[in-house]
Amino acid sequence: MRDQYQQQLDSVLTELVQMTVVVRAALAQATVSLLTADATLAEDVISGDLAIDEARERIEDDSFDILARQNPVAGDLRMLVASLRMVADLERMGDLSVHVAKVARLRYPTSAVPASMVSTIKQMAQTADEMISSAAEIVASRDVDAALELEAADDAMDLLRESMFRILLSDSWSDGVEPAVDMALLGRYYERIGDHAVSMGRKIVFLVTGQHPAAV
Amino acid sequence: MRDQYQQQLDSVLTELVQMTVVVRAALAQATVSLLTADATLAEDVISGDLAIDEARERIEDDSFDILARQNPVAGDLRMLVASLRMVADLERMGDLSVHVAKVARLRYPTSAVPASMVSTIKQMAQTADEMISSAAEIVASRDVDAALELEAADDAMDLLRESMFRILLSDSWSDGVEPAVDMALLGRYYERIGDHAVSMGRKIVFLVTGQHPAAV
Repeated sequence: MRDQYQQQLDSVLTELVQMTVVVRAALAQATVSLLTADATLAEDVISGDLAIDEARERIEDDSFDILARQNPVAGDLRMLVASLRMVADLERMGDLSVHVAKVARLRYPTSAVPASMVSTIKQMAQTADEMISSAAEIVASRDVDAALELEAADDAMDLLRESMFRILLSDSWSDGVEPAVDMALLGRYYERIGDHAVSMGRKIVFLVTGQHPAAV
Repeated sequence: MRDQYQQQLDSVLTELVQMTVVVRAALAQATVSLLTADATLAEDVISGDLAIDEARERIEDDSFDILARQNPVAGDLRMLVASLRMVADLERMGDLSVHVAKVARLRYPTSAVPASMVSTIKQMAQTADEMISSAAEIVASRDVDAALELEAADDAMDLLRESMFRILLSDSWSDGVEPAVDMALLGRYYERIGDHAVSMGRKIVFLVTGQHPAAV
């Protein structure tokens, strides 16, 4: 009976880690659709969000099932509630990937990203991807050291966002208002995806150590 | 014993409703600081966010205390987990109000809002305020009919955001890139505050009716 209970708990964490893989793929596709003005790929990301929503429902149902039947206490209780929040973080990262894909679709057949911004967007997407990957590692292994990497990547994302604003608010910006608005919002979407990864990592660190990460 | 338990549950919901009052005040102050370029008021909103974070911690601690000691089942269990999520929604609305105040501070002593955008920003702030108020009513009274108002206000917010984009992407926009970027981000902050209110309302509707609102 206890073994089955432990298996159920482990299975929730495994499902969470699997969900990070789906979210990373959605974000990667959204970024490619944005940079290459690929409307079909953008549509795939938008329609594929349903699978992320369904994964969320499945993990929620499983977590509530354990909460209701097993009366978990202390650490297990907190882990389950943290899982319910992490699954909300992941669903939101999926939604934000859809927002990226929708900008790609809106500006098709042109790419929404001006030449001067391609490198920054690529780096933001890469940083966000690494952050989701680190969060997954922390969930899978409870490796709190990986949380330090996550905080460092979060700082890198802040610098990228600042550099983006410097470019689009400089006198040499010649792409006009519409691309500037697109970039400001895209920068926000990538930053928020990173924030949700940080949020996941911090939840696990708090569960394992009882301490909020120093960087909070 | 059961009476005390029921009191503890009720007290969590009462604290949530009180937190909506603090968040509404923060948002209202942030909007005034933005429209009047009042840096002191903006600072008040930014430093006042600590009280919102503390309210979140208090409600979380109380909820975990009930979860751990009382082993609530079924409806009560779901209500407590929903409370833990609603308190996260409210904290996030506080953070977004801080973002609004930070734009005010960044552009001080000028107002960040060009004359052509004052009316739209006022309407967005008013709509977001009504949405938090409706969410509070739904939490306080479990009045699921108020959820319909909330969905209608959410539609109104979408229209305001569209109207904002029409203005700032029109040929007659003469305020340049920086105010356009500020407006796009501010529009996003107000919209997200509204989204979190909708999210709170939907959680209660689901708890009361077992159904997701039709508009989802």
